[in-house]
Formats: sequence, C-alpha cells, structure tokens
Amino acid sequence: MNVIPAEVVTPAVLIDVDVLDRNIERMAASMLGRGLKLRPHVKTHKTLEIARKQLAAGAVGITVATIGEAEVFAADGVKDIFIAYPLWVEAPHADRLRALATACRLAVGVDSAESATTMGRQLGADAGSIEVLIEVDSGHHRSGVLPSEVVEVANAAAAAGLTVSGVFTFPGHSYRPGMPTGAAGNENDALGLAATALTGAGFEVTTISGGSTPTALISGESAATELRPGVYVFGDAQQLELERCSWDEIALTVAATVVSRHEAAGGNVRRVVLDSGSKILGSDRPDWATGFARLPEYPEAKVTALSEHHATVVWPDSSELPPLGTRLLVIPNHVCLTMNLVDQVTVVRGGAVVEQWAVAARGRNN
Amino acid sequence: MNVIPAEVVTPAVLIDVDVLDRNIERMAASMLGRGLKLRPHVKTHKTLEIARKQLAAGAVGITVATIGEAEVFAADGVKDIFIAYPLWVEAPHADRLRALATACRLAVGVDSAESATTMGRQLGADAGSIEVLIEVDSGHHRSGVLPSEVVEVANAAAAAGLTVSGVFTFPGHSYRPGMPTGAAGNENDALGLAATALTGAGFEVTTISGGSTPTALISGESAATELRPGVYVFGDAQQLELERCSWDEIALTVAATVVSRHEAAGGNVRRVVLDSGSKILGSDRPDWATGFARLPEYPEAKVTALSEHHATVVWPDSSELPPLGTRLLVIPNHVCLTMNLVDQVTVVRGGAVVEQWAVAARGRNN
Repeated sequence: MNVIPAEVVTPAVLIDVDVLDRNIERMAASMLGRGLKLRPHVKTHKTLEIARKQLAAGAVGITVATIGEAEVFAADGVKDIFIAYPLWVEAPHADRLRALATACRLAVGVDSAESATTMGRQLGADAGSIEVLIEVDSGHHRSGVLPSEVVEVANAAAAAGLTVSGVFTFPGHSYRPGMPTGAAGNENDALGLAATALTGAGFEVTTISGGSTPTALISGESAATELRPGVYVFGDAQQLELERCSWDEIALTVAATVVSRHEAAGGNVRRVVLDSGSKILGSDRPDWATGFARLPEYPEAKVTALSEHHATVVWPDSSELPPLGTRLLVIPNHVCLTMNLVDQVTVVRGGAVVEQWAVAARGRNN
Repeated sequence: MNVIPAEVVTPAVLIDVDVLDRNIERMAASMLGRGLKLRPHVKTHKTLEIARKQLAAGAVGITVATIGEAEVFAADGVKDIFIAYPLWVEAPHADRLRALATACRLAVGVDSAESATTMGRQLGADAGSIEVLIEVDSGHHRSGVLPSEVVEVANAAAAAGLTVSGVFTFPGHSYRPGMPTGAAGNENDALGLAATALTGAGFEVTTISGGSTPTALISGESAATELRPGVYVFGDAQQLELERCSWDEIALTVAATVVSRHEAAGGNVRRVVLDSGSKILGSDRPDWATGFARLPEYPEAKVTALSEHHATVVWPDSSELPPLGTRLLVIPNHVCLTMNLVDQVTVVRGGAVVEQWAVAARGRNN
C-alpha cells in the first residue's frame, strides 16, 4: 500500500488518480441510477483538473462556497455554478456576481427576506439574471430557515427582482456516528416540505438541492432533484469512521516522515512524531473521532495530538515502532482543509508520480 | 473598537500595526531587562515586514520550523536562523541546508543519535558549518529527549562532524489554564540539567534555548540564554483565555460579516452565522477553550461551531442579535494557523488601511 515515490519531499499531499477516478464514477453512477443530478461541491478539492473529471462523468455543474471560488472555475469554462452560501451582497459582491452571470448560469443561496431584498437592490436591473435557492435548515442548525418560512423569503426575493428557482439544504448533522440515515431522512422531509410550500405559493420549483457525502449514497425516495456531495472524491478519516467509505476508497493521503521516535521511558508514552502537522492535515477533530488523522498501514495507531509541524502518534503495543526516517501515509480527518493548505498536489498512479496539479482556488475565502 | 475599513471585503485578516509594534517592543524590553536573547519564532506570522520589525527591536535572529521557512527569510537577508525542529535529513535536505549555511548562521534541532549521524553523513564535509542544538523534552512529551539522554545525542552529533552548540526545549504543556508557571519551571529545570550534562561531558554550551509565549514573560531565574516566543506579536484567543495577553494587546483579528441571523425558534438556539469559517480562522480548539474564537466586541458570545465558511455564534441573552450585514471582529484561537491560510494581510492604523503585507512563507511545509 505504501507507495510514496522517492522524489516526494515530505510532508506532501498525494492523490491516487485511479482511486479518485473510481470514486468519481461510483457517485456519478449512483446519482444517474436514482435519477438525481450531481452537482459536486468543489470546495473539497479547489482543483480544475478534478472538476473537469466530475463534469466529464456527468455532473450537471458545480457547487462552490464563495464568489472567489466561482470565479476560478468560471474562468476555466464551467457553465453552471451554484454558490451554496447565504450571501450578504454589498456593491463589490454585486459587481462580481454580474460578471459571473455573463459567463455561466449562476445560482446563489439566500436565507432571509432581508438578504434577498439587499441582494436585489445591489444587483438592480441585473437581479433577474441570478437564480436564488432558499436555504432550508434540515437539522444542522447553522444557516437556513425552517420549511415554514421559505415562502416569506421567496416572496422577498421575487419582489426584489431575483429569479427564485427552488430550495437547498445541507444536512451537516450527518457528521456523527449513527446519524447519516436519520439526517438523510430529515433532509428529505425538509426539502419536501419546503418545495411543496413554494409550489403552493405559486413558484415554479426547478431545483431541490441536497447535500453531504455521508447522506448522498443513502438510497430511497428522495425529494431532491440534485445532490451536492464534495468529500466523496477523496474520502477522509471522518468518512472512514462514519463508515461512509472504505480504506481502499481513500484517494488522498499526506506523505510523512518519522522524525522523532520514543520507546516508553520516563513515564512517557510509546510514540513517534511525524512531520505532518496541522499546517498540512488541518486540525478538525470532532469529539467522536478517534484522533486527528488515521494511518492506513497502522489502523490501530492513534494520532493523539497535532502541532503545526508535528503529529504525535501513539503506537499500538502490537507492533514495532517504525524506524526514524520511515515514510508513512496519513489520512487527514477532513480533506477539504488539507487541500486548502497546499498550493499543489502530487498525482500518483501505481507508485509513480504522473503529474502535479495546482490547487487553483486555494485561499479564495471571499 | 470596531474599525473595519469600508474597503475591506470580508473575511479578511487585519493587523493593527500600532498594537503589533507595542507587542514587539514589550517582549524585546522584557528579554533585554532579564539579560536574555530573543529569537522569535516567525512561523507565527511568516511575514518579512514583521521579522524586520522584530530584528530592529533587538532580536538576535529568528526561529523557524522548516527549511522552506528558513529559505524565505534568508533570502530577505536574515543572518541568524535556528530551525527548531528535529530534522530528518535526506540528500535534498542536505543540499538546501548547505545553501542556507552559506547565507546565514544556521542552527538546526536534533533529538536522536541516529538523526544526528544521518544528518552528518548527508552533509559530509559541510557538517561542521551547521550548528546543532539537542532537543530536550521538558514535559510536553512530543519530540525531544530526556536531560539524561542529551550527552548520547551530542556525542553522536560531534562524531558525525556537526557543531554542537547547546540545547533547546519547547514547553508546550504551558498551553492549558493554570499551567504556564509550572511549565516555565519544568522548562528551566530541564534546560539546566541538560546544559550541565553537556558541559560536564566537555561540550562548550553557547546556546540554551527556551520557548513559548505563555512562559516567556514569567520572570525568575532562568537557565536559558535565549527564548523563542512566537504568538506574542499578535496574541490570540488561546492567550487571552490563558491570561497571557489582554484584549488591548490583540493585534490580529479577522473581519467578518453577519450573513445569517436566527432568533430562537423551532427549538433552535439564538445565533448568528459569520462568514469567517475554519478556512480563515483555523480549527484549533483545545478542550479548555470556551469556543472556536472570541468576539472582542461581545466577550460573552460563544463561537460554538466552525464549518469551512461559517462561524456559528450563540448570542448572549444580554444583548440584541446584530443585524444582517453587521461587520464584526473575530479573534482566532491560534493565530499561526490563520496567517497560514491567507496570502496577504491588511495592515490598519487608527481605522485606516495603510498597507498590505504578503504572507511570504505561507505553506512552506517542507
């Protein structure tokens, strides 16, 4: 399994392109088989080459989180972009949205009457060229309105001159063991209620958009017309521990080196330190996770702490501590953060480097 | 206090240069007053302009975490650099270390006989041009050897042709409420024991190097000759909650906008969502922290969750929810991560933008 090419200087992000391609195909096939459109969230990878693969495999367009991300992918020729975020639009945002809407079909999120009114006012005569989807809270309790409040927001959006085309939700409460199936049910219920309310109020609902890698492959009747999973392209330690992907579906790893090694002594724990810290792995660590990352070659090893450039790995009693200088693969907890920490990634196939890809939209936070 | 200039598009990192200058002066004066050299860790800011200020204020050189960071600052003319990391040196690292050693006085960390031997072998005839400091574990239990093991590592380094000049430690266990004073004591004890052991074994110990912003201002007898604090230039929410800085010593904030607003309804909590998520704040969240960040204008508000582009802020009952579109300042838990997430920062003075600084060493993970 450990196929870190000799020329890779650690720490570095490796993408196994064969695994990536299989992940892209699997999700595309599942969506097609269920009559759902796939609009992958590209904040996961921020990489032009991967978006092109997703579109070639049948994705109808892409999802992004920021105007800046939309600009990067629109400049690469993507023609259908949804900014799945409750934008608060001031004059500079309006100028950028206008420019985007001339380059692609553009939809944006909105979750209050006031944001819709402000957006319409800032866009002025161009408001109608932007589609809006009303964000619904399906149980994550972050942004979004209750299904019962959707019509009020849609009316404000329509009054502001915007084109209301449907609803969306992100069932982020799926990110906890035992939750994906229930969250998928909540998502379905909330989208169904919200879409029915909009239709009842006279809106033509063309898009009902759901999301999340943990819920996307849960089959069953769906109120959604499209889904927006992101992480599925790579998988990560969170998805492994949620049992939403298997070890052989992990396409992204961080190549790391053992730089410090400590047999138990002086009351200390038996551990190694790797050169992959929070500045490449990211430090997301939900309370249910077993640690800050996973080691595919040593599933029993626990990554108990991350500093910026150190990962402390408590070693299982069942195996020898690896020698200093050993190169190991590390699976980050949350790949979206890892991709945002590097300017480029090393693409490998069968243990050989085949390409470097730029993380084109890295750091596009606004 | 809230002086977000109108032209700033959120989310964005703001540096109040007057506060920054005061922080730099205060630490420099404290070190000078105690007869200690200051070698600030620049992984905190990764910014040439700030390193120049630190050196102008009397720092004897800088500390970095990676060879890549050293290269960026050496190229800007820094003449004395310590890579405070237990490097595992392969041929590509050796080439880069050789090049650095021609540009500046260079010291590196080592924490095992085997790494020292390997480093010396890779450097060959140039080994003597690199100083090494032996890393001591003073209680953080990450990298570093026990004081009783220092001589063995130093002997290996000397045998490998390296120039042994002393010892260093990072008392990272200071990052917990109630711990800074004890950790400073541990640091002092470990450095003292290690330096005495080295001297006793015939080594000339010229550098005894300690670290950490939580411990750096704790006065008292010190075994150290130099200290390597980093975070002190900006302060952050961790330092606030450890009572290691005050609110008016916070030089770095993230400017954010309220994009979603929810009065308690449907069983949900009263909250706002800001556009500053983990992709700009970083997601470090120690178990003792009150949340993922702090709001200086609303100290009672709790940042209960971060997604990549959302900060969920549970609002105190004692004050009104801010309107949509309100621009607020956010103090990250850990500034070193924030600086590594942006390409540039906006420098402000008295509410006006005075400059943009590039984060020159951002992403230099190896």
